[in-house]
Amino acid sequence: MRKIVSLLAICFIAVNLNGQNEKHEKQIETLYEHALNKGKAYDWLNHLSNKIGGRLSGSLNAERAVLWGEDELGSLGLDRVFLQDVMVPKWVRGTFEYASIITGPGMSTNVPVCALGGSIATPSSGLRANVVEVKSFEELEALGEEKVKGKFVFFNRPMPADLINTFEAYSKTVNQRSQGAARAARLGAVGVIVRSMNLRLDDYPHTGNMSYGDLPNSMRIPAAAISTNGAQLLSSMLTLNDKLNFYLKLDCKNFPDVPSHNVIGEIKGSEFPEEIIVVGGHLDSWDLGDGSHDDGAGIVQSMEVLRLFKSLNYKPKRTIRVVLYMNEENGLRGGSAYAKYAKQNNENHIFALESDAGGFSPRGFVFEATDQQFNQIKQWKSYFEPYMADRFELGGSGADIGPLRDGKVVLSGLRPDSQRYFDFHHAANDTFDAINKRELELGAAAMSSLVYLVDQNGF
Amino acid sequence: MRKIVSLLAICFIAVNLNGQNEKHEKQIETLYEHALNKGKAYDWLNHLSNKIGGRLSGSLNAERAVLWGEDELGSLGLDRVFLQDVMVPKWVRGTFEYASIITGPGMSTNVPVCALGGSIATPSSGLRANVVEVKSFEELEALGEEKVKGKFVFFNRPMPADLINTFEAYSKTVNQRSQGAARAARLGAVGVIVRSMNLRLDDYPHTGNMSYGDLPNSMRIPAAAISTNGAQLLSSMLTLNDKLNFYLKLDCKNFPDVPSHNVIGEIKGSEFPEEIIVVGGHLDSWDLGDGSHDDGAGIVQSMEVLRLFKSLNYKPKRTIRVVLYMNEENGLRGGSAYAKYAKQNNENHIFALESDAGGFSPRGFVFEATDQQFNQIKQWKSYFEPYMADRFELGGSGADIGPLRDGKVVLSGLRPDSQRYFDFHHAANDTFDAINKRELELGAAAMSSLVYLVDQNGF
Repeated sequence: MRKIVSLLAICFIAVNLNGQNEKHEKQIETLYEHALNKGKAYDWLNHLSNKIGGRLSGSLNAERAVLWGEDELGSLGLDRVFLQDVMVPKWVRGTFEYASIITGPGMSTNVPVCALGGSIATPSSGLRANVVEVKSFEELEALGEEKVKGKFVFFNRPMPADLINTFEAYSKTVNQRSQGAARAARLGAVGVIVRSMNLRLDDYPHTGNMSYGDLPNSMRIPAAAISTNGAQLLSSMLTLNDKLNFYLKLDCKNFPDVPSHNVIGEIKGSEFPEEIIVVGGHLDSWDLGDGSHDDGAGIVQSMEVLRLFKSLNYKPKRTIRVVLYMNEENGLRGGSAYAKYAKQNNENHIFALESDAGGFSPRGFVFEATDQQFNQIKQWKSYFEPYMADRFELGGSGADIGPLRDGKVVLSGLRPDSQRYFDFHHAANDTFDAINKRELELGAAAMSSLVYLVDQNGF
Repeated sequence: MRKIVSLLAICFIAVNLNGQNEKHEKQIETLYEHALNKGKAYDWLNHLSNKIGGRLSGSLNAERAVLWGEDELGSLGLDRVFLQDVMVPKWVRGTFEYASIITGPGMSTNVPVCALGGSIATPSSGLRANVVEVKSFEELEALGEEKVKGKFVFFNRPMPADLINTFEAYSKTVNQRSQGAARAARLGAVGVIVRSMNLRLDDYPHTGNMSYGDLPNSMRIPAAAISTNGAQLLSSMLTLNDKLNFYLKLDCKNFPDVPSHNVIGEIKGSEFPEEIIVVGGHLDSWDLGDGSHDDGAGIVQSMEVLRLFKSLNYKPKRTIRVVLYMNEENGLRGGSAYAKYAKQNNENHIFALESDAGGFSPRGFVFEATDQQFNQIKQWKSYFEPYMADRFELGGSGADIGPLRDGKVVLSGLRPDSQRYFDFHHAANDTFDAINKRELELGAAAMSSLVYLVDQNGF
């Protein structure tokens, strides 16, 4: 008899689990159907990219984006929409940036450059000097002050092409951009030129953040990115004539911090309102393009998660919050302020999801989680298999949600196909036409599905 | 003692298998490294797309592509390069195609159209008639001759957006293009207008093959594709005014078959030369764009497989053959002729791989195989996992290799991400700039790796 009862219990659990699975499968199917047939992400991005445009922290456009985000979230019938104050850095590119390679009197070739975010300007008449090319900081240090002083240092280590994950290739080269100026300045360089973080050969210089660290103001030198084609040209001209001159003129300027905002919206949980699931991207972008991939895509995908829930009349058990973080690119002030707010209010965040890797075809998610948590998450893989978004890995999730990390909350990042991302990243061609509607929507659907599963199951 | 021997045997096998695995992993890593750092696929495609261009069967360009293929394969130091004669259909678009929606005297709107491949021309003065819109053949039949006679039939069933695999969405709508004219003609229609097989709203009409089947010449009617934006416009104008006129002028023409060629190259196997592994794509393309995705990508990826083997000095055990098939698009004559040749020569094909789904980021492969064969193949999945090309499924492989199907040979198709494919398929924007170098190369590397594993292990 006991055996029969046990058997019945097992059957009941199995049937029940099966019923759960089917319910989840059905809900996820519905989320995908709506995202692909009646999605709003693409229209939203069209507005953000084409009606607002690039939105660097501290700019008028960034504030227009804040108001737009507040407005659009306000129209969704959420339980709460509010702005969180945050002070952000203000750096302005100025009206003019220009460079040329000068090989003799009247012999010069223009090359596409842009100031790196945070760089100081050149003197108003520009800066002209010899160039020394290096591939690494080790090479730079080996040259020493004698060979560097009074020159431009040209950092020309390309992103390695044979790494399948292009973000890995990025991480292997980006220190040239972020620390190059500080390193070169200590050896007496007058400026730095950095090969763009781009796997493709083209004419777009890619900007991005740089830091002088603790370098005194008096020692700071201007820093510019050069397009990959420009870098190839400069390098080959240097092999012909290492006495050539590089001319650089930058107009950029740092200002004191200015006020800005995170934009936050939420649906209150019906069963466990104190358990918070947060989804987001960053609302600021660099200024050269309109930031469609970085990170307009993440913004509209995150908003779409809550819109889909509302429009499908799905009532979450837990509180679902969307955060449009301000100032990921050059300060991370929004992400830090949000984590501080959460801590101050003793909020219990159980899951944070970020989309900040472009609006490309989703391949899966990356997680920062304990073994136990990740074991639970891996059981959901099969739900994503029909949608080809079932690559689940452990790894770094997203910059804005990083400050929430406390060993308990699960952090996650959407992982779209990475092959094309650095063709556009931080460059003038990161524009709306580089976005594929379906790919954007598939990302939003995958995010919605993951948030749904966390909401249903908790951790 | 026996136990110890068994144990030792197991250990030996395990160590040996492990050694094999490492050897294979290393070789695949090398293939990827070379494809990504020193690949030739992209340069080849640049030539095929930009120096030759669209290459419809029977055209001068198709013959230029044949000579180019023979030349390039000839330069690789293969054991044999030869042309296989094949007669192909010749259809010519002509110099002029034009359409407009006419709602009243002097009130007309041009819409982007193109003739479907195989269509007859309109009268030289064009064709003007009312339009009846349908979404399916059932709807068409229900209307009957009375409501169709003397009119254009406008097939306007969109590709369903919520199917994740866009080829599935294509298969659900393409009968409008392939059979629409024959169906409509039997009910007395004067012409057909078919919504382009495109998931995106844009202004590119997409051509593609159509057939009149056994419809007598006298009953044949012209057939054109209309861009998706044009289809939306026509449909909405029809709801306002179902008496509007559509004007269509096509200039196309069918000619008798002309001679052409498959281009074939091979490396003789060192151990099992009689076991043949064939890899290929189709050399012909439609004429509107330059056929970079369909199927220039497949051509250069297939050539790259053999080039990588030669340049890495890999000596295959089995015979590796590349076939650049002629006339996939409107006849499949090359694929059929190759299978016939193989049969006539009693050749033993063990594996055929085709790339004809675009040059996008590879997700995996599809196989036509027995259970036993597929079980063996699935054991190779882990080799592709680091390269994110490990989605292995059973299903239809490729058109050109279809005629080889005999229940024994394993057929396979590269499966790139499908989201963007129908943005370009058979349209004027299927051009070289729509190709991403890395994605193309990753496909070539994945194909090389699979061919390598088949060569090493056989079936």
